[in-house]
Amino acid sequence: MTTEQETTVLAKRVEDLLRGDDVAEAIELLASIHPADQADLYLHLDSELREALLALLSAEGLAQLLRHLDEEVRQEVVGRMPRAALARVLDHAESDVAVDILRLIPPAETARVLANMATAADVTPLLGHADESAGGLMTRGYVALHKDMTAAEATTFLRLSKPLAEEDYYLYVLDARNRLQGVVNLRQLIVSAPQTRIEDVMTRDIITVSPDTDQEEAARLIQHYRLRALPVVDEEGMLRGIITTDDIIDVLTEEATEDMYRMVGVGVDERAFSPLRESAKRRLPWLAFNMAWAFLAVAIVNFFEPTIAKLSALAVFMPMIAGQGNNAGVQTATIVVRSLALGEVHLRDTFRLLRKEVQMGMIKGATFGTVLGLVAWLWKGNATLGVVAGVALFLNMIVAGLGGVLMPMALRRLGIDPATVAGVFDTVLTDIMGFLIFLGLATLLIDQLTS
Amino acid sequence: MTTEQETTVLAKRVEDLLRGDDVAEAIELLASIHPADQADLYLHLDSELREALLALLSAEGLAQLLRHLDEEVRQEVVGRMPRAALARVLDHAESDVAVDILRLIPPAETARVLANMATAADVTPLLGHADESAGGLMTRGYVALHKDMTAAEATTFLRLSKPLAEEDYYLYVLDARNRLQGVVNLRQLIVSAPQTRIEDVMTRDIITVSPDTDQEEAARLIQHYRLRALPVVDEEGMLRGIITTDDIIDVLTEEATEDMYRMVGVGVDERAFSPLRESAKRRLPWLAFNMAWAFLAVAIVNFFEPTIAKLSALAVFMPMIAGQGNNAGVQTATIVVRSLALGEVHLRDTFRLLRKEVQMGMIKGATFGTVLGLVAWLWKGNATLGVVAGVALFLNMIVAGLGGVLMPMALRRLGIDPATVAGVFDTVLTDIMGFLIFLGLATLLIDQLTS
Repeated sequence: MTTEQETTVLAKRVEDLLRGDDVAEAIELLASIHPADQADLYLHLDSELREALLALLSAEGLAQLLRHLDEEVRQEVVGRMPRAALARVLDHAESDVAVDILRLIPPAETARVLANMATAADVTPLLGHADESAGGLMTRGYVALHKDMTAAEATTFLRLSKPLAEEDYYLYVLDARNRLQGVVNLRQLIVSAPQTRIEDVMTRDIITVSPDTDQEEAARLIQHYRLRALPVVDEEGMLRGIITTDDIIDVLTEEATEDMYRMVGVGVDERAFSPLRESAKRRLPWLAFNMAWAFLAVAIVNFFEPTIAKLSALAVFMPMIAGQGNNAGVQTATIVVRSLALGEVHLRDTFRLLRKEVQMGMIKGATFGTVLGLVAWLWKGNATLGVVAGVALFLNMIVAGLGGVLMPMALRRLGIDPATVAGVFDTVLTDIMGFLIFLGLATLLIDQLTS
Repeated sequence: MTTEQETTVLAKRVEDLLRGDDVAEAIELLASIHPADQADLYLHLDSELREALLALLSAEGLAQLLRHLDEEVRQEVVGRMPRAALARVLDHAESDVAVDILRLIPPAETARVLANMATAADVTPLLGHADESAGGLMTRGYVALHKDMTAAEATTFLRLSKPLAEEDYYLYVLDARNRLQGVVNLRQLIVSAPQTRIEDVMTRDIITVSPDTDQEEAARLIQHYRLRALPVVDEEGMLRGIITTDDIIDVLTEEATEDMYRMVGVGVDERAFSPLRESAKRRLPWLAFNMAWAFLAVAIVNFFEPTIAKLSALAVFMPMIAGQGNNAGVQTATIVVRSLALGEVHLRDTFRLLRKEVQMGMIKGATFGTVLGLVAWLWKGNATLGVVAGVALFLNMIVAGLGGVLMPMALRRLGIDPATVAGVFDTVLTDIMGFLIFLGLATLLIDQLTS
């Protein structure tokens, strides 16, 4: 991974070569750059140079480049390519990458491309699965052995067939009807006596998923059991493909982004430069939902308007009491939401968490309530105002702790993803309760406050 | 990965067996459970049964269990174990796990445990590296070949030495002085003619890191280049260890959690049940920092207190204008912070992002400003109040977009992690500007508002 600066320098050199006539030198330079870095470079080039770069790559080189580009850019690259050329490129791509790319072109053209592909038989069965399922993530690039082979036969088979497998550390052992019986790794094969039957060295107890399994579940399995590859098996026990660790890394990174974005109502697929329309479609509803609830807080303040009319200094401290409540609440809610997502915390832990977060609320409340109370007293020269503001902040910090635990837990209980709305509810709760306590106390003590 | 319910049922059975006398059956049941699930079970048991379970496991079984437990629980397990027993357990653990565990016990005891370990020579060199560096993450469990071996010799070597390697898909090729020369994978070895020299089939162009490389950088390299293992090489070119994908998955998950937690001032190492003291140590300073800035918003409201004294209804709409500004700002800031972290956006994109987010702000502002304006007008029967509230919200949404882009970018520019404080600054900015615009406009139009 080159740094941003190195990329810029390299991009300059590639640009110069692409603009010049020395095709041989340009090809040589490109060949010395890892496809992952070629992908970064590609993003730096303007439209004309992008075309020049693509023209210099072989079908295999293009397949490698496509593997490292994201969906949006892949679409652009594929759009520039004649369909016959695309078939040759996809023949060099791993089957899961080929499928992802075939999904980007219109179905009518897919058939035409497939008809020209030598590896169509590997790719076609994958096309039927949903993109975010185990079936959509898996590759057909695995090596299958028959259970009755000997270690020597298996080794010879490998030597002669030279399989192009993405993940050939594990070899999958099938019976006569292609049902998955076990797995051996290359090391087991090599260290076995030549006449040993595969069946006798293979591991039978294997963790598998079905093609419909959600990709996040597949990712969690690989992470939980620390697997290197996960076989995908259909209801008849037939091996349909395998999922490899590098695909999982992308799924986990995406998932983490999703968790962060969901908490603030940003679209899961939104990127920094998504079109305005896309961004608005996801962000506005969340803000509207927020606004609807925020009218509750407005109603509370409205109810106490007569008190504010008597002592306008109350309005000065309102933002602080609500704001610190929001902040404390979002701290608790974020920990609870993330811990639920990672499976580190379960519904049954609610009471234990509640105890901790209420205690935290008391610590936060005592600290910041005292500070606010003193500031209000000394600044406004009104001790009662200090007490009212301090006590309100103290209590609101406890509300924040309670809400930060109970909101996500209740949402999870109801089967709603807590990430989506826990933050909204917690903010509204601390607004409402903060104003209710602060302005309520002030109303009760209005005579002392204004004397 | 068993579901929560299955774990509970299984835990019941294990508990009953552990309480009973049928040791053989308990051992048999345990053996049928994957160590990753044993680890989940362990967390469900009370202190007495935990001890009973540990007593049933062999040294190898304990090593497997420890691999799947997190640091806190490892410490507890290791604390219960006699030092001589611990040495036997660590002999069965992978070297990176063994090192992590040795770091949990007092240095004086570490020496005693190491003295009893057969694999001390593999583990000792790893102890010198920082926990979060490539050196701290790597394992010595790799297979090394000599570059002058033939494929047949290498295969025989593997068959005879039966190395216990964590990652033996790649074989590392060293010269006479143990300097890394290249890498071959088992497949290349198997498909080569027996007399081929390793040197002639190995890949020479390898991506490596030094032992001091930060673990996040190592994780990014593996993700970027889609590697299966990453060799760690010192300044003399000697191979010191390798980092495998499963370790990286944990690093990436941790990193994502860190990004989320940093945005709300929660400790990076904080877990849902961290001790109060730990939690307070990280959360209070962030809240204090927030509070200090929030006094700016308080000062603004205070400045306009005379206006509020004339028209207390203004206080009713303050929470809405600030709150919606906060929400819109946090949407933008979250996208920018995460995109910067993932390397999808760079400083040079500031202007482009700004354009988009200001446009988004205008869309958000036009939508919600109109709604708020209408509500204020119809509810309070005051058209001017409607205009003031609506315009203030409209402008504050644009401020939110500006701040959401400029704050993280400015922090990045200054070399400060934007995740840490971008949210704080954005919230304060939308509070201040929201109040300033709303109350400022109201002050200018106070005659129309109160007529």
